[in-house]
Amino acid sequence: MEGNWRGRDVISILDFTREELEELFKHAESMKKSLEEGRVEKKLKGRIIALAFFEPSTRTRLSFETAAKRLGADTIGFSSGFSTSVEKGETIADTIRMLDSYADAIVIRSKYEGSALLAAEIAGKPVINGGDGKQHHPTQAMIDLYTVRELKGRIDGLVYAIVGDLRYGRAATSFILALTRYQPESVIFVSPPQLKPRPEVLMLLEEAGIRYSYARLEDAVEAADVLYVTRIQKERFPDPAEYEKVKGSYRVTRSLLEEKAKRELKVLHPLPRVDEITHDVDDTEWQAYFTQAANGVPVRMALLSLILG
Amino acid sequence: MEGNWRGRDVISILDFTREELEELFKHAESMKKSLEEGRVEKKLKGRIIALAFFEPSTRTRLSFETAAKRLGADTIGFSSGFSTSVEKGETIADTIRMLDSYADAIVIRSKYEGSALLAAEIAGKPVINGGDGKQHHPTQAMIDLYTVRELKGRIDGLVYAIVGDLRYGRAATSFILALTRYQPESVIFVSPPQLKPRPEVLMLLEEAGIRYSYARLEDAVEAADVLYVTRIQKERFPDPAEYEKVKGSYRVTRSLLEEKAKRELKVLHPLPRVDEITHDVDDTEWQAYFTQAANGVPVRMALLSLILG
Amino acid sequence: MEGNWRGRDVISILDFTREELEELFKHAESMKKSLEEGRVEKKLKGRIIALAFFEPSTRTRLSFETAAKRLGADTIGFSSGFSTSVEKGETIADTIRMLDSYADAIVIRSKYEGSALLAAEIAGKPVINGGDGKQHHPTQAMIDLYTVRELKGRIDGLVYAIVGDLRYGRAATSFILALTRYQPESVIFVSPPQLKPRPEVLMLLEEAGIRYSYARLEDAVEAADVLYVTRIQKERFPDPAEYEKVKGSYRVTRSLLEEKAKRELKVLHPLPRVDEITHDVDDTEWQAYFTQAANGVPVRMALLSLILG
Repeated sequence: MEGNWRGRDVISILDFTREELEELFKHAESMKKSLEEGRVEKKLKGRIIALAFFEPSTRTRLSFETAAKRLGADTIGFSSGFSTSVEKGETIADTIRMLDSYADAIVIRSKYEGSALLAAEIAGKPVINGGDGKQHHPTQAMIDLYTVRELKGRIDGLVYAIVGDLRYGRAATSFILALTRYQPESVIFVSPPQLKPRPEVLMLLEEAGIRYSYARLEDAVEAADVLYVTRIQKERFPDPAEYEKVKGSYRVTRSLLEEKAKRELKVLHPLPRVDEITHDVDDTEWQAYFTQAANGVPVRMALLSLILG
Repeated sequence: MEGNWRGRDVISILDFTREELEELFKHAESMKKSLEEGRVEKKLKGRIIALAFFEPSTRTRLSFETAAKRLGADTIGFSSGFSTSVEKGETIADTIRMLDSYADAIVIRSKYEGSALLAAEIAGKPVINGGDGKQHHPTQAMIDLYTVRELKGRIDGLVYAIVGDLRYGRAATSFILALTRYQPESVIFVSPPQLKPRPEVLMLLEEAGIRYSYARLEDAVEAADVLYVTRIQKERFPDPAEYEKVKGSYRVTRSLLEEKAKRELKVLHPLPRVDEITHDVDDTEWQAYFTQAANGVPVRMALLSLILG
Repeated sequence: MEGNWRGRDVISILDFTREELEELFKHAESMKKSLEEGRVEKKLKGRIIALAFFEPSTRTRLSFETAAKRLGADTIGFSSGFSTSVEKGETIADTIRMLDSYADAIVIRSKYEGSALLAAEIAGKPVINGGDGKQHHPTQAMIDLYTVRELKGRIDGLVYAIVGDLRYGRAATSFILALTRYQPESVIFVSPPQLKPRPEVLMLLEEAGIRYSYARLEDAVEAADVLYVTRIQKERFPDPAEYEKVKGSYRVTRSLLEEKAKRELKVLHPLPRVDEITHDVDDTEWQAYFTQAANGVPVRMALLSLILG
């Protein structure tokens, strides 16, 4: 079965079956254990991973870099389009072609829809989408599911409330898409009307037989086993004053959780957060976002190791 | 003979004899083979190469970094003057002195004429010019000659057409200078009048007994065995409207090649390109610029290994 | 005694006793020797050091990076707040929490007072202050003392003249604080009135029984065994014209040294310098600032090795 992984591109979470995700998670578990015990096998010694971050990112970039280096590989690349040839007018295609001849795999991040797919078509080496456009961030979705599985013991049968920008936020959309590979009890959306999930995403939920509904934050928190929070960018509102008026409706606070949440609720967030989860939630049992961030390393180690191993 | 290489500075392509270049190319060939076979010897294990890129560059920087890491060395440095002490007013000399005490070799890139020479005078460790001023980019010229040698079987006896900014473009000038170490059949220049090669460059061609001439692009393409294309920057034209008028005269298209070029013509470009070679040339047999870019790694591996080995 | 070092945070030079500093210096001596002999033991193989430079720095960042890599460790991180999540509004605390889960130690640099202490409270892994706020740059002070010890044979019993911005300059302040761990003959301050040391710093000198005084540059140079020069930023003067008038009074030139200085005087500067030491001092016997910069690597190697070894 590992044969399916070697040399594979990772463009969308929809490219993966439930069985493949489960296999990845088992590898990630064993990576996490070996990290904790300080005895990671240098499986990727001598390999070079290119990190082509046309759009800045801290967590995704540094956790890929850490994952590569923990496995004995090295990295090259850039952390923003600034100071690269793209600024001089080079196409992404030419940049990818160059990296394809230097490195053994390419992680790409870009604000443009379809960049990772384009890169995969050009490159002979495996391409991993580190987030592109408004929908795809497959490795984030893997980390999110892995964290739910780790903390709740399962992914099926749970009530998921997903909060924030469900239309333009790629982490939220990828998480919703990822759930179609499992059997959640139901999915509850909490977002301003203009930031609801796209019709094609809803259709995939329907095809997968997953019930979904819309609710206010208070009610969603009350029903949820997993609360997935994302940021709403002020710029999405035609009138910024409108944003100021509603933003409180999408902010998760300790007092809200104390009033409404199940004791076993787990709160996730792909991070960085600004103020959509207040800092007084950080040292509660509900907080799972720091665990989720830390899981970025073992999950990406598992992925790199399956693809390049 | 390798004794000539150890600890050597690389400032200008003119510092090298034909025999030395041939020796380098043989090493590069063997590096390329070992890369393909995935069995590169970690000759530079424990070494640190400083990459002092005061001027941004993607290809030169990443291929030096890849070359160093493939050989087991590590790198430190910066990829633009931005965010370094130079911004606070530190001289290049003080920065180089610091790197000289940290690293085992220094690769420098700068827009200022003579920066690499200055660095070499200050540093005790070997200094490699990764491009400075308007004339010198010796490692690019090495890669260019190596690519011609690889694809055409020889460097002597060929007709070279060189297109673009031959006055301020450092890759083009270094390539012309490099040809004086060989015996081309002839060299044809294609450029706007104000961007012709400098008199001192022409003098070196004459001293080497190399015939050169000027031609329109069509005629040059027809005669050439090797077509070396570079970018013409709009800013070189006092009147930008003038540039818009002539730019088509320096653009290599598939239809032009189909109409005029020999079947065996090889098209080189130091990259990045903007639109001086149209993308429909990419998947023709004439295209050699991606091979040339890929050759950056084995040629720089050979150089680092001879200098630091 | 090494037990005191393992896992330790490095926030202020005042956290260290004289005995601990001496132990560090002995390790640094042996690191320097092994660097010179090219036989450094890869004590930190497999470790990852995070370099969280929210404020740009060349020397501190690259010497930490070199130190880590010479010891076989690897690094991850960023070299300015630009292009990181902090730009998107993430708190330093959230960024540190992430790095704490990726790396084995964190070096932090920030313009904000108390950032390193905050980071140390959040992180489980050791945190090293690479300079924060206006007072603390403990590893710079270690390097400074080490350099004095190396060049003068001792730290006690010497006359120290300290020049420049003694109020807002973190390197100068940390150096003054470091001297309280030893018994200098005396300390002479040379600065504009508004840039004198803070009262709390003077109080610590008094508690340590160290005599200090204020003098003009000429007189300080005449009396000093060690001259520690730092930059005065124009912006510290309410009226820039005022700065232009006085800046000559704080500039160390070769002719001043030839007229006034002891032959054995050593001139230090944390670098980068702009024009507060003229370049004609560089090749005199007084110059010690390049040695000091070079010592950044062995001293930081010793520190990393004691903390992570």
